[in-house]
Amino acid sequence: MTEFFNVVTPDEAVAIICTKLSKAESLQANVKDSVGRVLAESVYSSELLPAFTRSTMDGYSVRAQDTFGASDTNPAYLELAGEILMGQDQHTSIAPGEAATCFTGGMLAGGADAVLMIENTSISKTGLIEVFRQVAPGENTIQKGEDYCPGEMIAESGKIIDSHILGSLLSAGITKVDITRNLNIAIFSSGDELVAPEEPLTAGKIRDINLYMINSLIRELGIDTTLFPLLPDDFDVQHEQAKEALTKCDAIVFSAGSSISGRDLTAKVFESLGKPGILVHGLSIKPGKPTILGICDNKPLIGLPGNPVSAVTVFKEVARPIVMHMMGAPMQYIKTVVSCRLASNLSSSSGRTDYVRVQVVVEGEHNTAVPVYGKSNLISTMVNSDGYVVIPSDSDGIYEGDFVDVVID
Amino acid sequence: MTEFFNVVTPDEAVAIICTKLSKAESLQANVKDSVGRVLAESVYSSELLPAFTRSTMDGYSVRAQDTFGASDTNPAYLELAGEILMGQDQHTSIAPGEAATCFTGGMLAGGADAVLMIENTSISKTGLIEVFRQVAPGENTIQKGEDYCPGEMIAESGKIIDSHILGSLLSAGITKVDITRNLNIAIFSSGDELVAPEEPLTAGKIRDINLYMINSLIRELGIDTTLFPLLPDDFDVQHEQAKEALTKCDAIVFSAGSSISGRDLTAKVFESLGKPGILVHGLSIKPGKPTILGICDNKPLIGLPGNPVSAVTVFKEVARPIVMHMMGAPMQYIKTVVSCRLASNLSSSSGRTDYVRVQVVVEGEHNTAVPVYGKSNLISTMVNSDGYVVIPSDSDGIYEGDFVDVVID
Repeated sequence: MTEFFNVVTPDEAVAIICTKLSKAESLQANVKDSVGRVLAESVYSSELLPAFTRSTMDGYSVRAQDTFGASDTNPAYLELAGEILMGQDQHTSIAPGEAATCFTGGMLAGGADAVLMIENTSISKTGLIEVFRQVAPGENTIQKGEDYCPGEMIAESGKIIDSHILGSLLSAGITKVDITRNLNIAIFSSGDELVAPEEPLTAGKIRDINLYMINSLIRELGIDTTLFPLLPDDFDVQHEQAKEALTKCDAIVFSAGSSISGRDLTAKVFESLGKPGILVHGLSIKPGKPTILGICDNKPLIGLPGNPVSAVTVFKEVARPIVMHMMGAPMQYIKTVVSCRLASNLSSSSGRTDYVRVQVVVEGEHNTAVPVYGKSNLISTMVNSDGYVVIPSDSDGIYEGDFVDVVID
Repeated sequence: MTEFFNVVTPDEAVAIICTKLSKAESLQANVKDSVGRVLAESVYSSELLPAFTRSTMDGYSVRAQDTFGASDTNPAYLELAGEILMGQDQHTSIAPGEAATCFTGGMLAGGADAVLMIENTSISKTGLIEVFRQVAPGENTIQKGEDYCPGEMIAESGKIIDSHILGSLLSAGITKVDITRNLNIAIFSSGDELVAPEEPLTAGKIRDINLYMINSLIRELGIDTTLFPLLPDDFDVQHEQAKEALTKCDAIVFSAGSSISGRDLTAKVFESLGKPGILVHGLSIKPGKPTILGICDNKPLIGLPGNPVSAVTVFKEVARPIVMHMMGAPMQYIKTVVSCRLASNLSSSSGRTDYVRVQVVVEGEHNTAVPVYGKSNLISTMVNSDGYVVIPSDSDGIYEGDFVDVVID
């Protein structure tokens, strides 16, 4: 057997590959069309935002000191000096003892430093504004520049543009940004035992689902995919198809046969593609040990285990960080991790990282992580769980009541 | 003022609208093309999965009792009766004292009930298999039907098809499912103070970002959108455009002016579209009070506040449940909620539901929710936070150290 002489941890594997892989180039794109894409530059505001001090209420813009001491029993009186409608500029100013009508989101009058809510006023018989509450300077306003000042960072390089970042960029008038160009990843499933899901199932065969699950997981990252036809356990066919993928795509993901012969074939195909070839052969994890990682032409070659649960786990913990490294996005921007109290003991073998699928129950004071019953390689455990707990290789297990980090997926 | 006579809670508002809105029709679709779509039926397996008892190891399929008592010092000896390759049917059977080569994912020989790992065997000088460990019946196998039995539910109606459900459906040979037909939602921003983000900003104007943020939030749900041009504060223009949207789309979302006049105009336009018209006018929440909800032609009319943070909050807490009700998906399938320990006191007014944006810090034993400094209507607070805490209307506030549910977004 050629395999598993030097198994490494998932983090070591990711580091071995990423130190040798460069980031994909960036390109300029319209912010509006870039939701889900990775920012290739940190973006800073070049403006004061808001550009003018805005009212957060409908009412009157005033000099705060003119309202000091005002109350229901001792109202202050102000004269109406004008009105600034929504979208109008500051065409009105107020002198001491004056106020101007203002609207939520609109400008204050010149000389005003606070806003009186209309609910705290009335109009007196003589047409004056009766003021029943005092306001402090700045009250009921958002100050010019309070959201962003020139030079302040709006979003950091490597972040995925979501609706919030989109809004912040556009609010600052930033309509174009540098994003990482999209990758296209080739996906293969191999194994004589596999048939496509729509094909009739004969004895000893199983339906290939890895092609479609891995495809969906990659597309979730906003990355394009090319799906290749099912590969037989035949070196020449696999070599030729992989060679073609290498010319067209930015990375190759094989979901290889789980048996030794299947894995050996993947390794042989990866080695045949060119230098440096295979860099990682076997991971010290469960599930997911039979993983093969390499590089050719600055493109990662990723050989996932054939078992679907293992393939998905290794994709998330090893392939995803590698792909996101190419996209310029650190994993802490991608994963959702929460702390949970473990509902039952989990044993583990020292020297091996274990991934255990759990349901997260939010009830009362804590999040509880309930390990999902069933063998770790049952497909149903993926549907019946919310995420997974990582038991590090230096641990013999974790106990009921312990706090654990759960990766939500 | 016509508004805010009868403010209701967000949950009441959602219930008022949803009881009067029917679910969208379903259609049959290819599972492979349905990731992100809502299942319109619960789907059950019609097969035993796996269809045959599979090995989870490379090694030998054996009768477990033939290995009982085997150890390094007292090996058992078995005769090799054959080999079942990957994808082959059960062409070989074993008699007592025999074993057959098997592979991870492959079939066991007839008569075998367990699998010996190859690592726990060697070949003796006489060509027999030397067995150094005993195995229990069923060991190193996945039993026929262990994943799914006929009639067992794979995924529930209303769930969004993710990569895990996709894999489970395909593994059972289910390649077509009923999904809710896609909706198309019309989105408008209105207000004389607004300019498009790419336009020059003149005094008193602000850039419209709500159109694009709401668009992105709706598309995240896998729903199509139609973006209308910016609306001026002009009843005739707004009425005409809304009327057109109502003929083409399944729902209308207005991000209306924040000022009283803007809100009044949205209400007038909604009322002008037809019966039953406006059903909710004002929510007892902060931010987000100036929200208007109605129905016309079995289509929801949703008037969000103009302030971007308010608009996003109300979208998530009120509009999203309404839209997902139409899609047939309950909100617990959409939201991610985690329990966190609050890092500082949060005060609140009784009688009003407050939404406070927080950062979630996972460190040590707990998730800590750190309220984001800054006024609740600053756009930057959305980028600098991970989610929000809901302070219910019957609470005066929550204290440092309390456990709170955080909605991650």
